[in-house]
Amino acid sequence: MELTTTIGYLALLLISGTFIAKVGEKLGIPDIPLFLIFGLIVGPLLNIVSPHYAQDIFEYVANLGLIVILLGGAFEMRWIVLKRVLKTVLKLDTIALVVTMLVSGIIYNVVLKIPFFSPVGYLYGAITCATDPATLMPIFSKSDIDPKLAITLEAESVFNDPLGIVFTTIILTSMGLARSLNPVVSFLSLALGGIILGILGGKIFEKLFLKYDFKEYIIPLFIGLAFFLWYFGDKIFPSLTGYQISGFMAVAIMGLYLGNTLTKYHHKSRYIESIMRFCEELSLIFRILIFIFLGASISLVILEKYWVFGLLCALGSIFIARPLGVFLATSIPPASPLKEKIYFALEGPRGVVPAALSATVYNIIENHSHSIPATIVKHLPPQEIAGSILVATFITILLSVILEASWAEPLYKKLFK
Amino acid sequence: MELTTTIGYLALLLISGTFIAKVGEKLGIPDIPLFLIFGLIVGPLLNIVSPHYAQDIFEYVANLGLIVILLGGAFEMRWIVLKRVLKTVLKLDTIALVVTMLVSGIIYNVVLKIPFFSPVGYLYGAITCATDPATLMPIFSKSDIDPKLAITLEAESVFNDPLGIVFTTIILTSMGLARSLNPVVSFLSLALGGIILGILGGKIFEKLFLKYDFKEYIIPLFIGLAFFLWYFGDKIFPSLTGYQISGFMAVAIMGLYLGNTLTKYHHKSRYIESIMRFCEELSLIFRILIFIFLGASISLVILEKYWVFGLLCALGSIFIARPLGVFLATSIPPASPLKEKIYFALEGPRGVVPAALSATVYNIIENHSHSIPATIVKHLPPQEIAGSILVATFITILLSVILEASWAEPLYKKLFK
Repeated sequence: MELTTTIGYLALLLISGTFIAKVGEKLGIPDIPLFLIFGLIVGPLLNIVSPHYAQDIFEYVANLGLIVILLGGAFEMRWIVLKRVLKTVLKLDTIALVVTMLVSGIIYNVVLKIPFFSPVGYLYGAITCATDPATLMPIFSKSDIDPKLAITLEAESVFNDPLGIVFTTIILTSMGLARSLNPVVSFLSLALGGIILGILGGKIFEKLFLKYDFKEYIIPLFIGLAFFLWYFGDKIFPSLTGYQISGFMAVAIMGLYLGNTLTKYHHKSRYIESIMRFCEELSLIFRILIFIFLGASISLVILEKYWVFGLLCALGSIFIARPLGVFLATSIPPASPLKEKIYFALEGPRGVVPAALSATVYNIIENHSHSIPATIVKHLPPQEIAGSILVATFITILLSVILEASWAEPLYKKLFK
Repeated sequence: MELTTTIGYLALLLISGTFIAKVGEKLGIPDIPLFLIFGLIVGPLLNIVSPHYAQDIFEYVANLGLIVILLGGAFEMRWIVLKRVLKTVLKLDTIALVVTMLVSGIIYNVVLKIPFFSPVGYLYGAITCATDPATLMPIFSKSDIDPKLAITLEAESVFNDPLGIVFTTIILTSMGLARSLNPVVSFLSLALGGIILGILGGKIFEKLFLKYDFKEYIIPLFIGLAFFLWYFGDKIFPSLTGYQISGFMAVAIMGLYLGNTLTKYHHKSRYIESIMRFCEELSLIFRILIFIFLGASISLVILEKYWVFGLLCALGSIFIARPLGVFLATSIPPASPLKEKIYFALEGPRGVVPAALSATVYNIIENHSHSIPATIVKHLPPQEIAGSILVATFITILLSVILEASWAEPLYKKLFK
């Protein structure tokens, strides 16, 4: 990846992103779907941004950006509000998630006409079951939607990433494509480990913040510590124990912890404000880059081959799988009101985590196709598995973000006003 | 370059950078030399950051960072102050620069015992003659040095980059290593082109800023436009005309123009402040990364081979070449007072531009060694040319930054208080 080209792309994306946002504001359309469509146009359609380059950059932009977005978003989440919706969040992050995964998997297998219990479908389900904070946080930060609903969906999206990752790993294992670790320990390590790591990181930062006066260096320290938590969870801890900690979960928990404790120290509020502002401004830049590069990184060749199939899976995932999951979960007492159920069901955009997972899974299948058992391959050759999952995931992300970012406000008004 | 490793490096650098700055503050030492030494320790000495990775990342960090640092630094430069020192700046950027280049070249040829007029030495002189805004701006922003002196040196450093680049290109041409373009047109295109492009960019941004309300998107637009000017000067314009425009010059001029015009619009001061603050905060992050990665990217093998030679060249460049150039230039009426001459002479740290140029030249010589005329090669084989220039440049940067960042304040107090 040449430096000059990268700077040219950044210039193109940031300038056009600004104007796209301006146009969206004029037309009353949220900017994220417009970014995606613009990405499709400058990427695979016009080839101004080469999809191959876009894929390379997307990996960096998505991960670095998600860290900053989670950090800033969670920093502004108030525990006092979160506490009131915690039960609903827990139901959504367990029951709704599992049902969404299973139903999406069944739909996939049925549409592809492969056996009902083939793990291939459930792999798609696992990849696409987690909802996206990078989409939801900006939507709600600019709208006047009831904070209770907003924070429920935001918190759901922050905390279901590790579960999505663990499901994906378990199914890859069942297909002979990942090391067979204990799935229960794996889950505990990812989720609980992330919570503990995040609180630890938060406590360390709090201590340093109170003890020393870092002045303007407080921002590099804050961002640096978030990167460190992610690196510890994703690299250092696995190399020691074999189990992964969700770095994204840790970053979000640290943000949540610090946003709710630091604000108590009024004599240092200047620094807290500068941290918040910087994260917000950097998040905005990353948001433009993430969604345009995501649109630009789609390959037309495999898109053409699988788009009908992918569209059916996406529609099933958005209109059948998630609604079923949400309705089942939120019917458990204390049940949510029907209007809330409908809103939660239709507001679960998929984003960065599925995008990153599908890219990883695509590479694993391409490189280790011989490891997949014959019982699976005889119904669907490995290249077909890899290509169909990639496209189905992309269309699920695209369609869910476009639809659900667009109707977030009108749907709310229709239901609650 | 693996993503996980990159995030790990960023975490390490940002966290340790914060503590290094804190230690420097306690000990009363500027942070830049500490960053460089820390880079040497974690890089070639301990191999925690692989020098090979550091070189890859340095290219990105140095260029993106220099754009942001120049943009923010020039945005805060007041024209009313700059106007008063413009004559001195012009003398420093022409006569002092040429003399520094020639004398450094002679020293290099004498030390290496090659013919007096061999272009090899003057190539080193051209690479290392430009002073560094990324070092000077942070030094002066945190000190109480007379703004007149500070702005003279800052402005000198902003505007001598294109001249340094053009000298390097001309000498490469004389060695058969670059296309032979008209050097006068080349210089005009780089420098004048940069000024015109920068003013144009500034005028466009000013118009947009006044016409539309971009809200929080004003920051991505500002940064995006700066990236675009750089890309236009470095890529689009050369591909159309064959001549390059100095992108860094254009970015600095745009910053200078906007910093001096936008501040007039008091009803929009909130956005101007947010632009300034964001550039400052991002500059700080880039400064940590630039100087630690620069230290980390030095290869021990070639450093060991050429360090005595490089040290001699560096000392000659710092204590003979630049002082001679500055004294000659500032003696032209209206001459500067002796104390100012001494301060200017000893405050010309070399930085990002020489680092980037030496890396580029190293690659060009390695890949096109057969193009160098036999008359040059018979005195010094191509690998020796490449290695000696690389190391001499690195040591010149290291030594000048360490010495001149450290004595910037004490020397000022000694001379003027």
